[in-house]
Amino acid sequence: MISPSPPAFTPVVAGLPASVPFVGPETLERRRGAPFAARIGANESASGPSPKAFEAMQAALQDDQARLYGDPESHALRAALAERHGVAMDEIVVDAGIDSLLGVTTRLFLGPGDVAVTSLGAYPTFSYHVAGAGVRQVSVPYRDDREDTAALGTAAGEHRAQLVYLSNPDNPMGTCCSREAVSALIEALPSGCLLLLDEAYVDYLDKRDALAINPPIDTSNPCVLRYRTFSKAWGMAGMRIGYAIGHREVIAGFERVRNHFGVNRLAQIAALASLQDDEHLMRVRGEVACGRERLQALARRHDLEPLPSATNFVSVDTGSAARADALMQGLHRAGIFVRKPGVAPLDRCVRLGIGTPEEFERLEAVFARVLHDVDEA
Amino acid sequence: MISPSPPAFTPVVAGLPASVPFVGPETLERRRGAPFAARIGANESASGPSPKAFEAMQAALQDDQARLYGDPESHALRAALAERHGVAMDEIVVDAGIDSLLGVTTRLFLGPGDVAVTSLGAYPTFSYHVAGAGVRQVSVPYRDDREDTAALGTAAGEHRAQLVYLSNPDNPMGTCCSREAVSALIEALPSGCLLLLDEAYVDYLDKRDALAINPPIDTSNPCVLRYRTFSKAWGMAGMRIGYAIGHREVIAGFERVRNHFGVNRLAQIAALASLQDDEHLMRVRGEVACGRERLQALARRHDLEPLPSATNFVSVDTGSAARADALMQGLHRAGIFVRKPGVAPLDRCVRLGIGTPEEFERLEAVFARVLHDVDEA
Repeated sequence: MISPSPPAFTPVVAGLPASVPFVGPETLERRRGAPFAARIGANESASGPSPKAFEAMQAALQDDQARLYGDPESHALRAALAERHGVAMDEIVVDAGIDSLLGVTTRLFLGPGDVAVTSLGAYPTFSYHVAGAGVRQVSVPYRDDREDTAALGTAAGEHRAQLVYLSNPDNPMGTCCSREAVSALIEALPSGCLLLLDEAYVDYLDKRDALAINPPIDTSNPCVLRYRTFSKAWGMAGMRIGYAIGHREVIAGFERVRNHFGVNRLAQIAALASLQDDEHLMRVRGEVACGRERLQALARRHDLEPLPSATNFVSVDTGSAARADALMQGLHRAGIFVRKPGVAPLDRCVRLGIGTPEEFERLEAVFARVLHDVDEA
Repeated sequence: MISPSPPAFTPVVAGLPASVPFVGPETLERRRGAPFAARIGANESASGPSPKAFEAMQAALQDDQARLYGDPESHALRAALAERHGVAMDEIVVDAGIDSLLGVTTRLFLGPGDVAVTSLGAYPTFSYHVAGAGVRQVSVPYRDDREDTAALGTAAGEHRAQLVYLSNPDNPMGTCCSREAVSALIEALPSGCLLLLDEAYVDYLDKRDALAINPPIDTSNPCVLRYRTFSKAWGMAGMRIGYAIGHREVIAGFERVRNHFGVNRLAQIAALASLQDDEHLMRVRGEVACGRERLQALARRHDLEPLPSATNFVSVDTGSAARADALMQGLHRAGIFVRKPGVAPLDRCVRLGIGTPEEFERLEAVFARVLHDVDEA
């Protein structure tokens, strides 16, 4: 108990669990008392930042830039992004990663009595922010291990939702919806409903494949907001930088509540340098395609079905939640950090990330034994 | 106008101005079409990070750490901070700077009908977050260029405030309240009211001087929350990392709404390394003391009264708001970035930061001419 007259949390906060969307690998390492030999559970890039980004960060450090606040407008970066995406600068907002952008988005649009729609088992940080806003969430089951765009649209209409969240490609399954399905969802949105289209993993796709899953960026539509990040294919999860693209009046809303000085200066510099290095992105795509094949072959060798993946991880179907859970725990004990979906029917899968070649070797070295122990137990 | 059926902002957001707490120096540089020769307006550290922090960031980059998310618990850093401050780890929360922590704090404690109390002209980012929460703010005038702790306490009681904000040492004036005054404010707080004691600048003071202005940290009192940062004396404003110290039940609230993966990994590593380098902090204090004397002497040579300062800037009294404004504009035109308080009676001052020796030379080189032009105009 707190001593006399403690400050009272808001009713919304008082009703929240002390939840963490994800337990970090460092926490698991502290619990097991040893570092992991392979860290392939957080969908981090095994390829790392572009050499140009790396050099830019080195140079910025040498030039004593860490002591200076970042540009609150991220002007140079937004200019480069606008050119890249064929939109105007005021149709882009840069922030400290998609998590932060999702938090601001919920503050912009969700109030008492509102409803947000997502998929049951989808990216939990969106749900975390929805709960933090004190708003009801409606969750739609996946269908064939894909987010069910038709059901998302129906739920949005039935519940008169303010926000609908869709990640495409999807986390945690790695699957994709088709462009036609996403377009149909956009058409089906009820009046005033905003689709949050999380494209964190889209940079793993080339232009043609990206267009096969999501419609082209159209900032004239105020009801679609796209999220991108430098944490995945650009390899800078630790730097915290991402952006949203949308209608300028929606983007303008972010200026009213975001942390204007919240973006790391080195991250801004590195992101800008990255955009000059599409060669790196191409190589990453190649490495990730190769890494997926490696993981899929490993799964099949052990009679486990790998799901198709458009991301830097492969979800592997173990047949049951209990088996998947035991496999994850066994891998943890063997020094391999992985994660798995938390709800049925996704929870029969374990999510294996594309690590470095060394990390894959370590996974491969223990996989047969761990799986054998799981099935013998 | 937005095309058919745009998403609607919440009523609170719809009523907010598209405000920025501060215009960044980069924005002013773009407006004037040239970079500043001296950047002494954002209270950044001219001394930069500790060499140990610098080396730690270099090593982390080389070790390909930028690709990895930071530890969501900032465990190692919190352990070091807990030891430093003689508190428990669960009495500390680390986040991406005080701005971000203030934003989370307002979300934790402010709801419809609540009131926040601050000083008229005090750090605007607190007010920005209060406005973002849709909450009424009561602002108490400064008294003798210091925050008026007695009046803050009275206002908190009269308006039954949930939060009271006090920075000590103060920004933008650089002045301090006495420990007795702060203690009396804490005693005077109405039931359930939380004092946010922003100590961003306290690291510029040695232990004795710090104790002369603020009471010792007492985490048994749930009604005081202290804020610290690595942006000022530790010289890493661009890295975005700070922390709050308070009662464990108040700190636990942050876990419910903060961005758990929001802290830059390099910032965590650099902050931890900094704490091993008190020698750097001592040197920074010496450089800042010297820099203040330099600025105060410059002001006095031009018959301007410098305010006493416990920070890395000196507010200089020009006698009138119009003169202060003209001086700031003139300095901008001469390539010197400075800022000034926005409201009376503080706005008769211009705030000069302690830059590098080169930056001070550039300020000194133009100061007489700019002031002359102001007074001749």
